[in-house]
Amino acid sequence: KLFRIASIPGDGIGTEVTEAAIQVLQKLAEVDGTFHFEFEHFDWSSKNFKERGYYIPPDGIDQLKKFNAILFGAVGSPGISLNPYPIVDSNKGQTQAKATDTKRLPDVPDHISLWGLMLPLRNSLTQYVNVRPTRILRGTSSPLRAEVCGPKDLDWVIIRENSEGEYSGHGGTTHAASGNAVATEVSIFTQVGIERIMRFAFDTAMLRPRKKLTMVTKSNAQRHGMVLWDQIFHEVKKEYPDVETDKMLVDAMTVRMTLKPQTLDTIVATNLHADILSDLAAALSGSIGIAPSSNLDPTRKHPSMFEPIHGSAPDIAGQGIANPVGAFWSAAEMVRWLGLEEVADKLMECIENVTEAGPRTRDLGGSANTKEVTEAVCNEIEKQ
Amino acid sequence: KLFRIASIPGDGIGTEVTEAAIQVLQKLAEVDGTFHFEFEHFDWSSKNFKERGYYIPPDGIDQLKKFNAILFGAVGSPGISLNPYPIVDSNKGQTQAKATDTKRLPDVPDHISLWGLMLPLRNSLTQYVNVRPTRILRGTSSPLRAEVCGPKDLDWVIIRENSEGEYSGHGGTTHAASGNAVATEVSIFTQVGIERIMRFAFDTAMLRPRKKLTMVTKSNAQRHGMVLWDQIFHEVKKEYPDVETDKMLVDAMTVRMTLKPQTLDTIVATNLHADILSDLAAALSGSIGIAPSSNLDPTRKHPSMFEPIHGSAPDIAGQGIANPVGAFWSAAEMVRWLGLEEVADKLMECIENVTEAGPRTRDLGGSANTKEVTEAVCNEIEKQ
Ligand SMILES: CC(C)[C@H](C(=O)O)[C@@H](O)C(=O)O
Ligand SMILES: CC(C)[C@H](C(=O)O)[C@@H](O)C(=O)O
Repeated sequence: KLFRIASIPGDGIGTEVTEAAIQVLQKLAEVDGTFHFEFEHFDWSSKNFKERGYYIPPDGIDQLKKFNAILFGAVGSPGISLNPYPIVDSNKGQTQAKATDTKRLPDVPDHISLWGLMLPLRNSLTQYVNVRPTRILRGTSSPLRAEVCGPKDLDWVIIRENSEGEYSGHGGTTHAASGNAVATEVSIFTQVGIERIMRFAFDTAMLRPRKKLTMVTKSNAQRHGMVLWDQIFHEVKKEYPDVETDKMLVDAMTVRMTLKPQTLDTIVATNLHADILSDLAAALSGSIGIAPSSNLDPTRKHPSMFEPIHGSAPDIAGQGIANPVGAFWSAAEMVRWLGLEEVADKLMECIENVTEAGPRTRDLGGSANTKEVTEAVCNEIEKQ
Repeated sequence: KLFRIASIPGDGIGTEVTEAAIQVLQKLAEVDGTFHFEFEHFDWSSKNFKERGYYIPPDGIDQLKKFNAILFGAVGSPGISLNPYPIVDSNKGQTQAKATDTKRLPDVPDHISLWGLMLPLRNSLTQYVNVRPTRILRGTSSPLRAEVCGPKDLDWVIIRENSEGEYSGHGGTTHAASGNAVATEVSIFTQVGIERIMRFAFDTAMLRPRKKLTMVTKSNAQRHGMVLWDQIFHEVKKEYPDVETDKMLVDAMTVRMTLKPQTLDTIVATNLHADILSDLAAALSGSIGIAPSSNLDPTRKHPSMFEPIHGSAPDIAGQGIANPVGAFWSAAEMVRWLGLEEVADKLMECIENVTEAGPRTRDLGGSANTKEVTEAVCNEIEKQ
């Protein structure tokens, strides 16, 4: 069986971890023998944007439609840091600041790169679900104390609405002559959009042992869209009498995630809320370098897209030291989506053998580079 | 010197902790002898809303204007949990769910209670700054491992924009005949609003030993209002060459707070972002029961308002077991705002003597009730 995969490595460490993931996927196919992958590469990067003036060429989305899935790296040529450690822009002259500066690509403002590449992909391929599982992989550990969070106490899947809400892009800015510029940012929520993400979340919860779904809003302060979320949740819930549900406000949710991780299982939230909560989830599970994400078109009309949740990390790009585990886990989710459940399980097993025994990258307390981790996972695949 | 204080205890544990805070403030004045407080109580609660149809009477805001400051408890008669532990609404019949249900006030939807009380207060008294300090009080501990966060590693002050942005309330819902309801939620950001919060944040940073300010946005995805924030930050920064600055995206910020707390000091963010980050900050410092918040009118035209960041906590309301420390710390911030710096320091000292030696409430690992903690703090004040 042949799977055609489009790869979009993007910027910074995106290119490094995507290459590593492809190596691992090829090894999987080679050892198994019953399926194989054919990759086609799309160089839709910020570097090329600077030269050509666009990320996606006019027929780009159409080109993607013939693939079975998309492997995405990361995009961002930051004017603002996309990775969790800051680009220091003080004029106090720290050496770290200078080192970072020279390694930075020339500035493409972030909203240009995101609205030029990542968001149009998610939107035009009707990838209206973003699935973000988090758990503590074997051999890694949570920054939380053991009494607060044991190794099995954090096992969540966050279902992120991926097509509307705070990411509608709607709004604008007027630079009034009064010198009082005014900007609006319009979040748009539709019944169709909310119902479909709710059903996906309930379906996900039904497949998990605890059958438990927590819905997150901020309906006490955001009194239009968030209230509609609450109402539709209340209706859709009736279709799923076997699922245990509760509701949280997004601010209080961060407290519960941090202090009572055991009490959560499946989580559904808006585009922005889930963006924030899934980064927190990754941090609480030990490193943002391991967390995967699946942009799914559940109707399977268009290819789905798999990407680590970390960014392009300009501060470590080009050094070959990025953690490829987030990209590997994303690749495993891709394999699962393509119907190869057992192969996906096997890949996760191999990844966790390596997170457990090493080599590990710096963010996981080791000192290995991307290549060493990739080879170790390939060796595990051969051993199986 | 006489200070006239309006107290608005609100709902649930709001009434319990406000009473405790008043006791502590009276004790402070009695022992000191150079100033005193006169309290007037406003019963603007959800219970009264149910009876009268309003929280704030028509002349309510005007009545408040003659006070030197306002002490606020909490509001919320939740249809959705305002406290970090869920109201279970499954039909699986957990006993906890039933106990919670009978203790709940009859439903006033949250957006009604917030837009009926808390938000109009902040808005009509031009309290455009919300200051949220967080640190690990003596004797309390972070849920983070000691290697990640030592007792002195978390010492932040979050400056929250408190008058616009995601809390504008603007937008609406249409229930289209197609059955596709559409809701919009419009965030409004103005140059005037952004400049004043930025200056307040820089001024705050200047007074702290590290002179370090981190600005948070989500300008990669929210391309109007958040880009305006970035631009104005860039301008205002020039007025403060001594402040070291960096910028973070709100999602990555949760990672940095969790994994590198030492790297942060003063933080400025929008209404919603700072709401989320300050709850996370409170959780990372050990308990949401200790965190204070000051709603300030920096022009001092109107009284400022001091409230713990926790909610009305219907699940434990009426039992006398709420942690009053958040209300005490808020009271200390009020005293500081009224110009009594040394008295504020002394109160913090007394509070921390108690968090260190006990008695402590359940959320801090103890078993004491509100009264015992309050008496202990009063005893400390007498001893000074
Ligand atoms: C109750 C709610 C509206 C409020 C807010 O979001 O401002 C609270 O969470 C807070 O942080 O003060
Ligand atoms: C890069 C950014 C626009 C993106 C998002 O917010 O969706 C990222 O943070 C993510 O979580 O995939």
